[in-house]
Amino acid sequence: MADQTNSQLRLVRRPTGEAQPDDFELTKDPIPTPEDGEVLVRSHYLSVDPSSRTHWNAGQSYRGMVQLGEVIDIGVAGEVVESNHPGFNKGDLVVGSMGIQEYGVAHGDVLTVCDTTVAPLPSWLGGLYMTGLTAYFGLLDTGQPKEGETVVVTAASGAVGMVVGQIARARGARAVGTAGSEEKCRYLVEELGFDAALNYKSETFYQQLRDVTPDRIDVIFDNVGGPLLDTLIRRLGMGGRIVICGATSQYNNDVIYGPSNYLALATMRARMEGFIIFDYEDRYAEAREEMIGWMKAGQLKFRENILDGGIADYPGILHRLYEGENIGKMMMRLPAAMG
Amino acid sequence: MADQTNSQLRLVRRPTGEAQPDDFELTKDPIPTPEDGEVLVRSHYLSVDPSSRTHWNAGQSYRGMVQLGEVIDIGVAGEVVESNHPGFNKGDLVVGSMGIQEYGVAHGDVLTVCDTTVAPLPSWLGGLYMTGLTAYFGLLDTGQPKEGETVVVTAASGAVGMVVGQIARARGARAVGTAGSEEKCRYLVEELGFDAALNYKSETFYQQLRDVTPDRIDVIFDNVGGPLLDTLIRRLGMGGRIVICGATSQYNNDVIYGPSNYLALATMRARMEGFIIFDYEDRYAEAREEMIGWMKAGQLKFRENILDGGIADYPGILHRLYEGENIGKMMMRLPAAMG
Repeated sequence: MADQTNSQLRLVRRPTGEAQPDDFELTKDPIPTPEDGEVLVRSHYLSVDPSSRTHWNAGQSYRGMVQLGEVIDIGVAGEVVESNHPGFNKGDLVVGSMGIQEYGVAHGDVLTVCDTTVAPLPSWLGGLYMTGLTAYFGLLDTGQPKEGETVVVTAASGAVGMVVGQIARARGARAVGTAGSEEKCRYLVEELGFDAALNYKSETFYQQLRDVTPDRIDVIFDNVGGPLLDTLIRRLGMGGRIVICGATSQYNNDVIYGPSNYLALATMRARMEGFIIFDYEDRYAEAREEMIGWMKAGQLKFRENILDGGIADYPGILHRLYEGENIGKMMMRLPAAMG
Repeated sequence: MADQTNSQLRLVRRPTGEAQPDDFELTKDPIPTPEDGEVLVRSHYLSVDPSSRTHWNAGQSYRGMVQLGEVIDIGVAGEVVESNHPGFNKGDLVVGSMGIQEYGVAHGDVLTVCDTTVAPLPSWLGGLYMTGLTAYFGLLDTGQPKEGETVVVTAASGAVGMVVGQIARARGARAVGTAGSEEKCRYLVEELGFDAALNYKSETFYQQLRDVTPDRIDVIFDNVGGPLLDTLIRRLGMGGRIVICGATSQYNNDVIYGPSNYLALATMRARMEGFIIFDYEDRYAEAREEMIGWMKAGQLKFRENILDGGIADYPGILHRLYEGENIGKMMMRLPAAMG
C-alpha cells in the first residue's frame, strides 16, 4: 500500500475557547506497516466526544492528552486490513483508540473484536465502548445507586447520559434526566423509559425538579457542570453521591464555574467524586456482557448520531456537538465504511 | 432562686453578612426549674464558634438551627446547681448544648461530666467537645489518612484545625497547616509539631506548598473554602480526599465561592465529602478516650483563647473571631467561673 497515503488530523495549536480550524492540520503520510503483534486497521467510524477538548489543553499530562504535532487520539471502529497478531484476521471488525486518521496501527492487545451479530458496529464504538463503559462504572461504582433510589443525570440525551439513566432503571432505581429541549425530554421518557425528563431551560425547572424528586436526589451523575449542577445540589438528599463525569458547559471556558452549593456536602453528609475509566480496564468485558444482557432483555437501547465526512471534516463536526442539537453518541462515518 | 434572673441572648433578626448587635436581643427571664431527669447548670464558659453563623440563616432546618426569638444554641461548660437526674450531683462540672444564657436546663442524658483531673474545664468545651470531636471523626472517618500520607488542613491554628494536624501526626501521617500569619505558622510547627505550616497570604504560597508536598496532597481538611481551597485542589494527588468541614471565608457572604478546580476530582479519581458530627454521638466517648491517651503521651495539646465577659458581650466577642487574630478554641468566660 506504499502508493496510498493516510490522511491524518494533528493538533498544531492549543485551542483558546472552542477549537478553531487553525488549531488542526491535515497531513498525508504513508500508510503505516504493522510490526510484530500489531494490527493495521482501516477506520470506518471516528468517535466525536465532548471530553476530547480537555485533552488538547496544556497542563498535567494524563492518558489521552494530546501533544502538539501529534495525531489526535480518539476512538475508532474499523476493519483489519493486515494483522501480525494471532487474535485478529483480515476483515475482522475492531474498536480501539487509533486516532483521527484513515489508517491506524495498534497492538492487538488493546483492540476489541466487535461481534456485529450482537450489536451493529457503531454501537461497539458507542454504548459498548468508552461512553457506555463510563456510564456503567461511573454510575455503579462511584454513584452506587440502591434499589428505589432516585438518580438524576445531566445531558441525559447525550451518549453517556442516556446509558446512565437506563442502567439506573435496570438496577431498580428511578431515573430522571435533564436535557436542553422538549424533544429530547420526550425521547428520554417515551423511547428510553426514563421516569421523568426535564428541560433545564424551563423557567419552572426547579419546581419541576422538586415535583419529580419527592424524596430528594440520591445520586447526581453530572456531565454538564455550571449553574445546573448547583441547582441539582440544592435538591440533594442525605448521604447523596455526586458523580463528576464531565462539564460540557465549561470545557471551552478559561474560568470554570465552581459549584457554590458545595457546602451542602457537609449538611447532607454527601460526597462528590470522580473516577477514571481506565482504572476499570480489566472489567470492561464484564460490563459489556451485562450491558448486552440488558440489550437483549429490551432494557437498554443505544442511539448513535452518525454524520458522514472525511478526515478534514472532523473539526466542523465536533463544532456541531456544542450546538446542543445532538442526541446520543455522535460519530463520523468515513467513506471506507460504505465498503 | 425565684428572685434571681437569667440573662439570655436571643436571635431576633436573621443577619445579612456579618451579624450585627441588632440581630440579637438580651432578655431576662426567671431561672428555669429542672423537671424529672433534668439538670440545672450555671454557665461558666460559652463556646464561640464560626459555624454558629450558619445556624442563624433561614433555610432548611437541621440540628442546631436557631429560630427567631429563640435563645441561641451553643456549647456551654458549667456547674450543676440542681439535679433531678441520678447521674449528676450539685457541684459537678458538665458540658452540653445549653445556649447563650447564665442558667440552662438540659436532660442529663445529653450532658457529659468533666473530669478536671484529666483536663481543665475549658478543654472539655474545646478539644474534648464538638471542635475536637469534629476534627477526630472528620479526619479519621471521612479523610481516612494512611500512615505516611500528607494531610493539609486549613485554618490550622483554629480550634478544629490544630487538632486535625496533631491527630494526623498521632496516626502516622504528615501534617501541613495553612494559617494567616507567620506567628500562627511558627506556633503550629514549634509548639504543636506540624511538619510544615504556610502563610496563605504569602505571594509564593503555591511554590511553598509544592515544596512541602513533594508527593502531592492525600487529604485536604478544609475549614475555609474560597480561593484557598481551589489552590489546594491544584495540588491534590491521585485518590485524594477532601473533607468539607466548613468555609469560614464564606459564612458572611451571600454568594458562596464554589471551587472551580472541582473537575480535578475526575482527573484525580478523588472525592470531596462532608459529614455531620451528630452522626457519631455513640462514639464520642471512644474518641475522647483516644484523645486523652494522646494528651497523656504528649502527642495532643489543646489551646483555648478565653475572653471574659457577660452574656451581653457575646456578639462583640464573636466579631473578634472574624478578625483573624484568634489562635485555638475561642470561648467566653462568665463571671460565674470566678467562683
